[in-house]
Amino acid sequence: MVSSELIPAHNLALDRDSKIILLVIDGVGGRPNSVSGRTELETARTPNLDALAQSGVGGLIHPIARGVTPGSGVAHLSLFGYDPIRHAIGRGAVAALGIGLKPAPEDLAVRVNFATMDDSGAISDRRAGRIPTERNAELCELLRKIQLDDVAFTIDPVKDYRAVVVFKGADLSEKLADSDPGQNGLPPRLVEPLVSDDPKAERTARIANEFIRQAREILRDLAPTNSILMRGFAHPVYLPTMREVYKLKAGAIATYPDYLGVSRMVGMDILPTGGEIADEMNTLEQHYADYDFIYFHVKKTDSAGEDGNFDEKVRIIEELDSLLPRMTKLQPDVLVVTGDHSTPATFKAHSWHPVPLILTAKWSRRDSVQAFSETECAQGALGQFPATEIMALALANAERLTKFGA
Amino acid sequence: MVSSELIPAHNLALDRDSKIILLVIDGVGGRPNSVSGRTELETARTPNLDALAQSGVGGLIHPIARGVTPGSGVAHLSLFGYDPIRHAIGRGAVAALGIGLKPAPEDLAVRVNFATMDDSGAISDRRAGRIPTERNAELCELLRKIQLDDVAFTIDPVKDYRAVVVFKGADLSEKLADSDPGQNGLPPRLVEPLVSDDPKAERTARIANEFIRQAREILRDLAPTNSILMRGFAHPVYLPTMREVYKLKAGAIATYPDYLGVSRMVGMDILPTGGEIADEMNTLEQHYADYDFIYFHVKKTDSAGEDGNFDEKVRIIEELDSLLPRMTKLQPDVLVVTGDHSTPATFKAHSWHPVPLILTAKWSRRDSVQAFSETECAQGALGQFPATEIMALALANAERLTKFGA
Repeated sequence: MVSSELIPAHNLALDRDSKIILLVIDGVGGRPNSVSGRTELETARTPNLDALAQSGVGGLIHPIARGVTPGSGVAHLSLFGYDPIRHAIGRGAVAALGIGLKPAPEDLAVRVNFATMDDSGAISDRRAGRIPTERNAELCELLRKIQLDDVAFTIDPVKDYRAVVVFKGADLSEKLADSDPGQNGLPPRLVEPLVSDDPKAERTARIANEFIRQAREILRDLAPTNSILMRGFAHPVYLPTMREVYKLKAGAIATYPDYLGVSRMVGMDILPTGGEIADEMNTLEQHYADYDFIYFHVKKTDSAGEDGNFDEKVRIIEELDSLLPRMTKLQPDVLVVTGDHSTPATFKAHSWHPVPLILTAKWSRRDSVQAFSETECAQGALGQFPATEIMALALANAERLTKFGA
Repeated sequence: MVSSELIPAHNLALDRDSKIILLVIDGVGGRPNSVSGRTELETARTPNLDALAQSGVGGLIHPIARGVTPGSGVAHLSLFGYDPIRHAIGRGAVAALGIGLKPAPEDLAVRVNFATMDDSGAISDRRAGRIPTERNAELCELLRKIQLDDVAFTIDPVKDYRAVVVFKGADLSEKLADSDPGQNGLPPRLVEPLVSDDPKAERTARIANEFIRQAREILRDLAPTNSILMRGFAHPVYLPTMREVYKLKAGAIATYPDYLGVSRMVGMDILPTGGEIADEMNTLEQHYADYDFIYFHVKKTDSAGEDGNFDEKVRIIEELDSLLPRMTKLQPDVLVVTGDHSTPATFKAHSWHPVPLILTAKWSRRDSVQAFSETECAQGALGQFPATEIMALALANAERLTKFGA
C-alpha cells in the first residue's frame, strides 16, 4: 500500500496550522538539446529555484509508472496522491467540472471540439483554426436548439475550440468510442459502443450520433466551424476530498479549466485568477492565509514543450523563477516544486521521463543537489519515487501525520 | 509482491550453514544539527562502522512507506520481512509476548500504565513518576485481588511503570478505544467499543471499565500510583515463524520487552542478556554457534533521540562502534547494520526519514559509500527500498535462496 493510501486507511492525518504549497510546472521535465547538450531547466537562469534546491532535498518522480507517459489529468491525480489507475477519470468529466458544472453521477459528460470538415467529408482541422472562446460561446448557443427525443443536455464553452456537452439522466453509458478520428484528413467516426450487447451503450451511441448529426446541420454554413467531434465520454467522478483524506483545506490556482476540473474532483476550492504567472502570484498572496494547502499550476511550459519551442520553455521557466520570491516570502512550512510530467521540447509531446522535484521544509534532511534540474535531482536524497507519494512526504514534513502502528 | 513474500510463496528458502546477523540500532537515522550541519551518525567517530560501509554496500530503507512514521513494533515486523500493514499487531499483544506470556488466540491483552490522578480526576502523570519495575511488581500483586464476574485475568509487570493484563477466554473483542487520554491534564476516558452494535465489544468494554474501577479503589491511597490507564487492546498474533518462512533458526538479543514480543511473534528464540551493549555482545558470542540468524538490538540511541539529546545519541553510537569488532570477529556470512526508523535528536520523536543501511557479505557488490551515514548511504548501490526487502537481500547474500522460476 502506498503511503497516500495508508493515510486515510489508518486515519494518520492531523489537523494542524502548518501550510503546504505544491508548485506544479506543467511538463517541466526536459531533455538535452542537441546543440548545447543541456535541458531546458539546465539552460534557464534560475537563481531562485536553485537556491531552493540547495536548501532542500531533491528527487525524481514517476507520474504513473516507469516508462508510462501520462495525460495531464491522471498525472495531476497522482500529484494529489490519488491512484490514477484505480480512479479512472474521463476527459469529459474533467472538462465539465473544470468549468464549474456539477453533473449528477449518472449524467454523461463529453468533450466537444469544433472542427472543420472539407467537401469530401474528412476533418481538415480538428481544432477549427483555434477559434476564440467568444465565438465558441456563440456556437454553443446555436447548438442549444438541438432536440433529442429522450434526453436533456447542456452545452457550454470550455476554452478556444473546446466545449463540453452533458447528457442528463439515467441509463447513459460511458462505454463509447470517440468520434474524433485523432488526426486531420480522416472522416469522423460514428460513436460506437466499446462493448457488445449493452443496451445502455447502444442507446447512448444513438443519442450522441443524433446530436452530432443535428449539430452539423446547424453549423453547415459556418466553416471553419462546420462540424464537431466528440471525445472522452465519462460520468463525473467525485473522489474523497483532500479534507477527508488529508485533513487539508485545499485551494487551486490554475489558468486552464482541465486542471481546475481535477482539482474540483478532489474537493479543492478554485481560487479565481488571471492568465499570467504574476496574476497567479496575486491570487496566492490574497488567499494564502485561508488555506492549509495550495496547488499552484504553471501551464505555459507544457505548451512551449509541445510546440517544440525550447527557447520559449526556457523563457517561461525564467519568468517563473523571477516571480518565485513572492511565493517563498510567504514562508510555507513545506514547498514542493515539481511538474506533472515531462514535455521535452526536443520531443514535442508529453513523455515518460521522470520529473525533477525539490522539497524544502524545516525538517528535511540535506543533500548535494545544487540546482533544480533533471541531472541534479537524480542525485537527490529523495531518490526516485512514485508521484502518488509526494503528498505523504509533504504532510510528514508539515507535521500533519501521526505515527503508524504500535 | 515484495521479495520477502515471494520466498515462502514459492518455497525459495534453502537450509544452509551460513549465518546472518541483523544489527538494529534503534532510531539511528538522524537529521543535521543546526550548529554543525551534521547528523548524529556524521558526528560520531565510528571507524568500525565506516570500515563496514567501505567493504559493503549501502542504501536507505523505508520502514513502512515514504513519509510514514512507524511505531517500533511495526517497524520491526518490516525488518523481519513481514508486511506490517497486513499483519496488524497491537501494543497489548507485543507487551504480553515480550514478557514471555503465551496467551491463547482468543485471549485479550492490554498494556497498562500506572498513572497519577489528581483530586479533580485528571491524570497528572501518565507514567506515575516512572516508578521502578520492583514497585510495579508489588502493585500488580495487589491488583490480582480484582474480582470480575465472568472472566479470568492475569496481570504482570513489564518494565518501569508498564504492566500487561491478559483477559482469558472466548467472546472478547479488541475493537476498543484506549482509556489513556494521551496527554497529562485530561481525565481518563471510559473504555468504549470502536464499533457499534457489537455485543462482544460492549461486553469487553464493561469488563475493562470494571477492572479499572476496582484498580482505582485498591490503589486509591497509593499516589503517585493511584490510577491505571489501558491502551492497545489486542489478541495475540502468532505469525508464520522465521523457520517456516525462511528456514532460519533465529535468535533475538534485545534489552526491552517490546522487541522480544515482536521477535516471539515470528518464532525467534529469546537469548537472555543484560542491559548494556557489552552484555548483548557476551550473549551473541555465547549463542552464535547455535543460530542461523541473530537479531541484535541496540535501544538507547532511540531513547537519546526522543530526549533530544544529540550528544548522548552520538555517544551511544560511538559505544556501539567500539564494541563492533566483537561482532565482526565472528565473521558472519552476512552482516546488516541499520535501524528500525529514524529518531532525529533535533526532532525529539520517531520520524519518517529513511534509515541508512549497510550490508556486508562475500557476494555483495561494491559502491562508493565511505561511512555509515544518511548522506553516504543515500548514494549507495542498494538505493532506497522498503525495509521488508532486507531479509531477502540477506538470505540471497548468504546463499540461502534458490532460483525463482524456469
